Amino acid sequence: MLSAALADGSAHRRCTFEAFARRLPDGRRYGVVGGTGRMLDALERFRFGDPELAVVSKFLDERTVTWLSEYRFSGDIDGYREGELYFPGSPILSVRGTFAECVLLETLILSILNHDSAIAAAAARMVSAAAGRKLIEMGSRRAHEDSAVACSRAAYLAGFDATSNLEAVRRYGVPGAGTSAHSYTLLHTDADGPDEAAAFRGQVAALGVGTTLLVDTYDITEGVKTAIAVAGPELGGVRIDSGDLGVWARQVRDQLDDLGATKTKIVVSGDLDEYSIAALRAEPVDTYGVGTSVVTGSGAPTAGMVYKLVEVEGIPVEKRSSNKASRGGTKCAMRLARATGTIVEEVVYPAGSAEPDPGGLTAQPLMVPMVRGGVTEPGQPTLTQSRDLLAHGLVSLPWEGLKLSRGEAAVPTRFVGRDR
Amino acid sequence: MLSAALADGSAHRRCTFEAFARRLPDGRRYGVVGGTGRMLDALERFRFGDPELAVVSKFLDERTVTWLSEYRFSGDIDGYREGELYFPGSPILSVRGTFAECVLLETLILSILNHDSAIAAAAARMVSAAAGRKLIEMGSRRAHEDSAVACSRAAYLAGFDATSNLEAVRRYGVPGAGTSAHSYTLLHTDADGPDEAAAFRGQVAALGVGTTLLVDTYDITEGVKTAIAVAGPELGGVRIDSGDLGVWARQVRDQLDDLGATKTKIVVSGDLDEYSIAALRAEPVDTYGVGTSVVTGSGAPTAGMVYKLVEVEGIPVEKRSSNKASRGGTKCAMRLARATGTIVEEVVYPAGSAEPDPGGLTAQPLMVPMVRGGVTEPGQPTLTQSRDLLAHGLVSLPWEGLKLSRGEAAVPTRFVGRDR
Repeated sequence: MLSAALADGSAHRRCTFEAFARRLPDGRRYGVVGGTGRMLDALERFRFGDPELAVVSKFLDERTVTWLSEYRFSGDIDGYREGELYFPGSPILSVRGTFAECVLLETLILSILNHDSAIAAAAARMVSAAAGRKLIEMGSRRAHEDSAVACSRAAYLAGFDATSNLEAVRRYGVPGAGTSAHSYTLLHTDADGPDEAAAFRGQVAALGVGTTLLVDTYDITEGVKTAIAVAGPELGGVRIDSGDLGVWARQVRDQLDDLGATKTKIVVSGDLDEYSIAALRAEPVDTYGVGTSVVTGSGAPTAGMVYKLVEVEGIPVEKRSSNKASRGGTKCAMRLARATGTIVEEVVYPAGSAEPDPGGLTAQPLMVPMVRGGVTEPGQPTLTQSRDLLAHGLVSLPWEGLKLSRGEAAVPTRFVGRDR
Repeated sequence: MLSAALADGSAHRRCTFEAFARRLPDGRRYGVVGGTGRMLDALERFRFGDPELAVVSKFLDERTVTWLSEYRFSGDIDGYREGELYFPGSPILSVRGTFAECVLLETLILSILNHDSAIAAAAARMVSAAAGRKLIEMGSRRAHEDSAVACSRAAYLAGFDATSNLEAVRRYGVPGAGTSAHSYTLLHTDADGPDEAAAFRGQVAALGVGTTLLVDTYDITEGVKTAIAVAGPELGGVRIDSGDLGVWARQVRDQLDDLGATKTKIVVSGDLDEYSIAALRAEPVDTYGVGTSVVTGSGAPTAGMVYKLVEVEGIPVEKRSSNKASRGGTKCAMRLARATGTIVEEVVYPAGSAEPDPGGLTAQPLMVPMVRGGVTEPGQPTLTQSRDLLAHGLVSLPWEGLKLSRGEAAVPTRFVGRDR
């Protein structure tokens, strides 16, 4: 494409590409923009060095290879802030520049946004389901080694409290947390058999009584008894990772209270997802450890966003064959809300035309400048700011929007035509 | 865990950890070991440098930080070769060394194996469904940016022919292939409207008549007509990305044949998975372009393998609480096959004990030495050798094993006890 467009001169035409989702995955009620910060960082580093050029020069003409060797995005990007909600058709990113410089960004932009948005959306549902209880992301083992780090970041964006992934602590400042594994308890086995108390003693000696002991390696009731015998009633927490978590949480709570450990927290883990988290809402659980379901997007591992050319030299363009129609033209978007803050509608309208009349509702503009002339605009939100933005966004949803069941988008998207 | 185990001395006990899958995901009939080569490479680089130590020194004692700064795996690993089939309970990796040096590898090993095995297993089903037709992996946009590169590699391992991910071409030598996008055709639009012929002319001028033209941007029948008018009947291929692909493939084949382009290939793409690939088996499709479904594991984005401590100082250990029992002890495995080559049973038995009697069947040992004293053994299979191994493995399955429907593992796994 690039080679052909450079040869016939069309590569230099001014274009707008738009990233958007045709639909929300899996009957979700809302989407969460995730990964924008990572994408802007990656964009600054997106160059073709000698190793990359060596590969493409095997099949590309010299002009194209030279162009790639000098590549640096010099265009503009506007878009939804990271942590913003989105709905079908929301113009999440608007990327403007020459065809050549914009088309090259498709995989970079979509890979990051599709991945991080999918994880953030799943995680946000778990945060709602947990209703204020703590959530620890523990899924690194079930995701690609580098994707896992981005998953920890996206889960934190969505409201998780901590991660067991130390690289996410290092790279993004996500708070770290973790408990021990069964292997640590099993390690304390000798010819006389298992010695759970020795394992607990070792952990308490190293980490203090504020630590969380894993009590389900052998027998949960015995494990709790041993844990309190070793650590005393000031023990920080116990983790249960198997069995009927609701039944065990109640039983362990009673047992802990009887032993005077009334402040010892109960952490549960083991194939939890938003549905099982919600199902445990009535039980005395303090913290959920979530693994596989959050790093795999709980049934929707990709957000399914696309990156489409919508305008060429000021002319709106769109694909016209069946089923996959896109809406041409560079767009803007705003969200209408009642005075109570509850959102009502997403309005997408042509860029450069007048803002549609909000009809008595409050209009919030959604697209902010991110890149100008290839340079990231100062003042992009931090991860914490994006986390706060999402927390506020979730509160603004109509109540149906927080339902876990499959259904329609929480608010409709209205497209205002160019001829309006 | 590490800190506590170093403090009480248990960190230095000799242990075996085993990576295995309790079950196959999503009713699959077989698993595919993927990522072993990547894992061995990552293991060689797995160190804690100053940036990592700076993070952990905030909460770890000095002894542990010093130990981490000197970390280098010095133990042994045996396991199933990359590209080997596996079944529930197959001891895919056996990792031996001190507790401390082995426990630290859990996330590294599982992240890579769980990810790559999930993608390879999904891709292998697509390869079977395609029944000899070509498959191009095009899913990078729907996966994390680095995971995407591993996905291309895993799809190639499973029998895909090529990838559109150039970094996978560079990093792993996967053959590259691709076609143009709708944006390239839409780019050729001016005040007089779209000019599909100009787009095709540009592509053919740059890439020759052997190229594949995307014909469904506007009207497929017109697109095919224009494509042949521009490129002539020697055109390499046309791609259809929307509509009822089976209906269009037949219609386009007839049209191409009528235009004398009898050798022009038909490439189809657009939300294909193993089921839709199989459903197109009777249609004149030459190549499938597969995206989202392969990079998301087609419903099973992680293989769900676990990494469990199974032996401490020669004593088998196992978790005993409900539902998650593991089988203690270091293990070996062999696969029994009939004289025809069709496999019958996976046999897992205690390492160091005599090989179970194959009872007239052919016994194939499954575990090979991978690491000795922390050093990767020479002669590990190349990606191409692993690809061949899997191709042979798929042929060895009983016919039910290749069914796409959900069901039981293709062959049972028999566990031979230690007291045998």
